[in-house]
Amino acid sequence: MSLKTPSFVAANMAGNDSDIPQNIPSCWQQTVQTWKFSRRLTKYILFSFADIPGVSLKIRRFSLQIIQMPHQIYPDLLPHTINCVTFPLPGEGPEQQLLKPNEWSYCDYFWADKKDPQGTTSVAGFEVLLQKQLKGKQMQKEMAEFIHERIKIEEEYAKNLSKLSLSPLALQEEGTLGEAWTQLKKSLHDEAEVHLKFSNKLHTEVEKPLLTFRGDNFKKDLKKYDHHIADLRKQLMSRYAGVEKARKALADRQKDLEVKTQQLEIKLSNKTEEDIKKARRKSTQAGDDLMRCVDLYNQTQCKWFEEMVTTSMELEKLEVERIEWIQQHLRQYTTLRHETDMFNQSMVEPVDQLLQNVDPSKDRELWVKENKTSEVRPVDMDI
Amino acid sequence: MSLKTPSFVAANMAGNDSDIPQNIPSCWQQTVQTWKFSRRLTKYILFSFADIPGVSLKIRRFSLQIIQMPHQIYPDLLPHTINCVTFPLPGEGPEQQLLKPNEWSYCDYFWADKKDPQGTTSVAGFEVLLQKQLKGKQMQKEMAEFIHERIKIEEEYAKNLSKLSLSPLALQEEGTLGEAWTQLKKSLHDEAEVHLKFSNKLHTEVEKPLLTFRGDNFKKDLKKYDHHIADLRKQLMSRYAGVEKARKALADRQKDLEVKTQQLEIKLSNKTEEDIKKARRKSTQAGDDLMRCVDLYNQTQCKWFEEMVTTSMELEKLEVERIEWIQQHLRQYTTLRHETDMFNQSMVEPVDQLLQNVDPSKDRELWVKENKTSEVRPVDMDI
Repeated sequence: MSLKTPSFVAANMAGNDSDIPQNIPSCWQQTVQTWKFSRRLTKYILFSFADIPGVSLKIRRFSLQIIQMPHQIYPDLLPHTINCVTFPLPGEGPEQQLLKPNEWSYCDYFWADKKDPQGTTSVAGFEVLLQKQLKGKQMQKEMAEFIHERIKIEEEYAKNLSKLSLSPLALQEEGTLGEAWTQLKKSLHDEAEVHLKFSNKLHTEVEKPLLTFRGDNFKKDLKKYDHHIADLRKQLMSRYAGVEKARKALADRQKDLEVKTQQLEIKLSNKTEEDIKKARRKSTQAGDDLMRCVDLYNQTQCKWFEEMVTTSMELEKLEVERIEWIQQHLRQYTTLRHETDMFNQSMVEPVDQLLQNVDPSKDRELWVKENKTSEVRPVDMDI
Repeated sequence: MSLKTPSFVAANMAGNDSDIPQNIPSCWQQTVQTWKFSRRLTKYILFSFADIPGVSLKIRRFSLQIIQMPHQIYPDLLPHTINCVTFPLPGEGPEQQLLKPNEWSYCDYFWADKKDPQGTTSVAGFEVLLQKQLKGKQMQKEMAEFIHERIKIEEEYAKNLSKLSLSPLALQEEGTLGEAWTQLKKSLHDEAEVHLKFSNKLHTEVEKPLLTFRGDNFKKDLKKYDHHIADLRKQLMSRYAGVEKARKALADRQKDLEVKTQQLEIKLSNKTEEDIKKARRKSTQAGDDLMRCVDLYNQTQCKWFEEMVTTSMELEKLEVERIEWIQQHLRQYTTLRHETDMFNQSMVEPVDQLLQNVDPSKDRELWVKENKTSEVRPVDMDI
């Protein structure tokens, strides 16, 4: 896949120089002016001759000579290669369409490396995505821990209520009031059971799933992705090194040719036309080598690109699944809370019922029947 | 108030002897027979002469002589006087109507003393009523203690939930999922507040009232009643002692008269008619004394009776109030429970709402905007 075709370069031939940075050191100003002209000229040539078979290679060779810049000194002025990855110059080429517009997809936003704000090291965009996944796993673990803490609190509460429900306090209250009181104590025990049930369900339906979701294999899988992408990056780095080496070799050959040509003109040495032809041939060969290295580089970058797209989409999917899974289980938590409150409410009802039935007259009857000392009243003593 | 008028004695003249216990020792059989006859005869006389003015006293005197029984030996055969309180013999007189029929009122069932099952001591019926009131006060105190224990449990629970709600676990979760998680933690804090509020209201609306209902004055008032009734009982005891003393004196005088009469008949001594007249006069006087003592006794018993009725009605009312008051405050308890469950339920709602809003796409957008490393994709390296 060629990311940059002659046609769209040509389409930009008339483009302005807004991509050239403003803050160029003054000693380079002249060089930059020359180069700007050269670039425009090259673009014209490319446009004119691009589609003629056989011409393309010649033109490319030629344009190399024209638009070659001492890029080792000011690398930003060429199509950006940062950390061996090549990006378009700002403003150059048509606006890039997102691979997945309106989706804020990982595959559109993590191509560049992230600079470490404190130092000079940087981290691959893919690494940022990976860290996100690892953090997600950590979040899941912490949520499980939180639920565990709630479980402990509920168990403690249940234990305390249960213990209190067995209290003998006011055990001796009798009659309808005594019944209501007994039921009140029993309802405390029932409440305890409700909270115990709640804590058990929290454990099986929320805590445990949160803990076991994506077991140990998950981290292993992430590591696999990590290594795979890192390997491809390393390959890219080595291809880029090849390009740099070829570029330098070409520059050396060109310099040599230039020097020899000048020397011939001023009859400075006994170099013959033959020597110049040889130098020119070596220069051309160096140019071909460079093109070959650039092709290899581009192929490797393509491979890395494809893998990046596939893998970042996988991570994106994993994140969607993680969020949905957590959402589902937290909803289970709130469902259990609702249930618990409803059960709790129903535990109070028998107490209400019996309290409504409290009847002092009934209680007096029961108590008097049990405790009366006589059923007759005193009478006058007889003579 | 005379509890036993000649008219209703007379109405029973033809009554049977079913009131006489069956298990009379054989040595008393003959005496009992004589007495049964005498009783019938007396009733006949009383019936016949009861309404003739001036006759009543004579008849009463006469009947005393007839129906006098060695009651000191077998007291149960006279209208029951137990511990100085006089009860009708079973079966004698018309069926007593309850002062407050169908109400199981204290004033109908606590006239007799209660025998201590283990020993020979006994406790006044009124004492049983008093103990009931004291026990009621104890019950109220124990219920307050129970509520206090619940308050402590609720405060502990609230404290634990509140502490957990401040936990930094999974604090780093972001986006819509992070918001839902934050709300979940906040709802825990809100739940804690609900339980704290519950415990505070339990304290002011249930525990404190239960503790302070009928303060220290209550026991003092009960003591007053106790002493007042006990004093009247003591008076009754001393009146009864007076009756016994007069009864004995009469028996002695009658014996003396009998002996003197016999001696005259067999000309055993030089006793004159004059001596017999004197003996008879003393006998009659002793009879009058006895009647006076009996009247005093009956008046005192009346006074005690009236106070008993008034005071036991007061205790009955206090018990009704106590039961209703406790019922009211336990209903307050269940009301607070209902409220608490409802508030608790409403605390979960914002969490449900935010969980419903959890949106993996939105979260990806937010995260990518924040963390993206580039907005352009790599392109082919140019020549």
